[in-house]
Amino acid sequence: MADQTIKINLSESKKQKPQSDQLGFGKIFTDHMFMMDYIEGKGWHDPRIVPFQPLSLDPAAIIFHYGQTVFEGLKAYVTKAGEVHLFRPEKNMQRLNRSSDRLCMPQLDEEFALEALKQLIIIDKDWIPSAPGTSLYIRPFIIATEPYLGVTASKHYQFLIILSPVGSYYKEGIHPVKILVENEYVRAVTGGTGTAKTAGNYAASLKAQEVAEEKGYSQVLWLDGIEKKYIEEVGSMNVFFKINGEIVTPALNGSILEGVTRNSIIQLLKHWNLPVVERKISMDEIYQAYKNGQLEEAFGTGTAAIISPIGEFIWHGEELVINNGKTGELSKKLYDTLTGIQYGTEPDPFGWVVKVQ
Amino acid sequence: MADQTIKINLSESKKQKPQSDQLGFGKIFTDHMFMMDYIEGKGWHDPRIVPFQPLSLDPAAIIFHYGQTVFEGLKAYVTKAGEVHLFRPEKNMQRLNRSSDRLCMPQLDEEFALEALKQLIIIDKDWIPSAPGTSLYIRPFIIATEPYLGVTASKHYQFLIILSPVGSYYKEGIHPVKILVENEYVRAVTGGTGTAKTAGNYAASLKAQEVAEEKGYSQVLWLDGIEKKYIEEVGSMNVFFKINGEIVTPALNGSILEGVTRNSIIQLLKHWNLPVVERKISMDEIYQAYKNGQLEEAFGTGTAAIISPIGEFIWHGEELVINNGKTGELSKKLYDTLTGIQYGTEPDPFGWVVKVQ
Ligand SMILES: Cc1ncc(COP(=O)(O)O)c(C=O)c1O
Ligand SMILES: Cc1ncc(COP(=O)(O)O)c(C=O)c1O
Repeated sequence: MADQTIKINLSESKKQKPQSDQLGFGKIFTDHMFMMDYIEGKGWHDPRIVPFQPLSLDPAAIIFHYGQTVFEGLKAYVTKAGEVHLFRPEKNMQRLNRSSDRLCMPQLDEEFALEALKQLIIIDKDWIPSAPGTSLYIRPFIIATEPYLGVTASKHYQFLIILSPVGSYYKEGIHPVKILVENEYVRAVTGGTGTAKTAGNYAASLKAQEVAEEKGYSQVLWLDGIEKKYIEEVGSMNVFFKINGEIVTPALNGSILEGVTRNSIIQLLKHWNLPVVERKISMDEIYQAYKNGQLEEAFGTGTAAIISPIGEFIWHGEELVINNGKTGELSKKLYDTLTGIQYGTEPDPFGWVVKVQ
Repeated sequence: MADQTIKINLSESKKQKPQSDQLGFGKIFTDHMFMMDYIEGKGWHDPRIVPFQPLSLDPAAIIFHYGQTVFEGLKAYVTKAGEVHLFRPEKNMQRLNRSSDRLCMPQLDEEFALEALKQLIIIDKDWIPSAPGTSLYIRPFIIATEPYLGVTASKHYQFLIILSPVGSYYKEGIHPVKILVENEYVRAVTGGTGTAKTAGNYAASLKAQEVAEEKGYSQVLWLDGIEKKYIEEVGSMNVFFKINGEIVTPALNGSILEGVTRNSIIQLLKHWNLPVVERKISMDEIYQAYKNGQLEEAFGTGTAAIISPIGEFIWHGEELVINNGKTGELSKKLYDTLTGIQYGTEPDPFGWVVKVQ
């Protein structure tokens, strides 16, 4: 598979590229996309880069009815010197395969998928925006395409990669958000699909998100589905707390998505000789730490924002204001270091950056 | 909305209709389908019946990434006299709207949706198979079509109805199946999307189903996601038990799908003056009843099979054989009565049948 050649069919007309201040997130797509098909028995075949175009699918395709699909999200960054950086992309390909396993979907050759991704990026290189904080968001995904209404794993799939130039997450600089602690809706539960990056988890999250926004909060803090006591994630990010000098994040418990950013932060903190632990954390504990004046910082972590400082939680009607609603020192340092590594302005002690050339 | 006219564009070429013994389930589709679009601000518009054809969707459409979609499943039956019957279709349209609400999707005019369904069936009437046990499976569904990678409710949707002639669920007569009690994977949890008919629930169920099949069982019995103790559903059906003369089914608890068949069975049993209760039922209780010789029958209920008798459970390695692995009397009577009402060979005391004309 790894030496299969990718057919390339370039677009005849190029779309106009947006101004860097009009980018937003995930609305604009580049001129090309990668596609590859899978049929049971034959395996993955016909890898190709084609003009960005609509998909034509049977209305009975399993994706529409039973949501058999997995996806990934990562970014390409252009450096001042004009080099293109990916950040730990092999991690995303590994996670894609883990997600596929949970969803009864076929495995990809990770190296080949990464190679396909690089070729696509090279073709659409001019689409990578260069203004500070901007990047090219990369969305690899696999969908079940067999037209069949039986509730069973599809025998046909399509693997695609699409690219979207995205604006800076923080146009006015990194700033904290207000978070509603969610006591009713559940994102995922042990034995469910929370560890997989699959559509249903996000569909399940929309309602809580909608309610939170109506109340003036930007995201929800997800508690475990069993006791509604232990903290899992924030919005679609992992979450960290700094309590009395120690940094804690919920342990991977079978319903939390293992974030690449989360993993990188844990490594960085250890590298800095800061105490970091992965363990169960209850909302009660956070509340106690807050009351004792020991809740120093809280932040979400993920590819989109990298670090999203939390300025306030609302829990059973009570407001827990953290660090006077300001971005904490550690949050800022992590943000600067990680984005610095990604954009090539900081050293990369772990060899996380993969250059596209 | 209800008086909006449906544009009709008939197919120029008709597909060949299958022999009734080659029908299977959900693989063959009729000549036409119904479509209607939604845009925020404009509402539902452009209802139309068109030739069955592929959908053309942007690869960034929300359905592919975040699974925002709901669906229904019901059947049309042709009677000996050539009349076309639907079974409580208004229940499906109501449930579709309830599902949409959970998924932050727009409501449909239920009457109009039913009218559209009827018009489509009339056009493809010749596709309804007439051999015993065969029917026309109807799949209404709504998908989020806006091309946007933000995790948020779509502003564009498509509502579709497709039709599939299906074979008899029981080619060799109604017969019991073996069921694995699932102790690891979870279908749905309180606060999640279990009460909605939405793709992610089915995606989550595939793995357990695959494992069960490898072990020689046809479906799994789903326990609650919190204590893994209480019975919820079987495969994608509701479940009933007859214990010492009393019929019990799990109460609707916030993670169980409210089946139309389930509701109809409860009404029928009451009509027959048989004791029927909806309550929490633990697997321990079923095991005790089995040990005491009081577990008389068990069966799944749903539109596809109507009644699916359970001949055996396997739980922690122990086989619980029910009624000697044979179809119980009550299961058979319910099956005969419900299918009799549907095919018009039995009286319809509740006015459940809706004629299409
Ligand atoms: C549910 C969820 N949790 C956490 C994350 C963070 O993962 P990563 O750091 O790999 O972006 C994501 C993805 O971005 C996510 O969708
Ligand atoms: C998860 C699930 N439970 C139960 C049922 C039974 O519902 P109904 O009787 O309306 O077909 C279905 C659908 O068929 C289902 O998908």
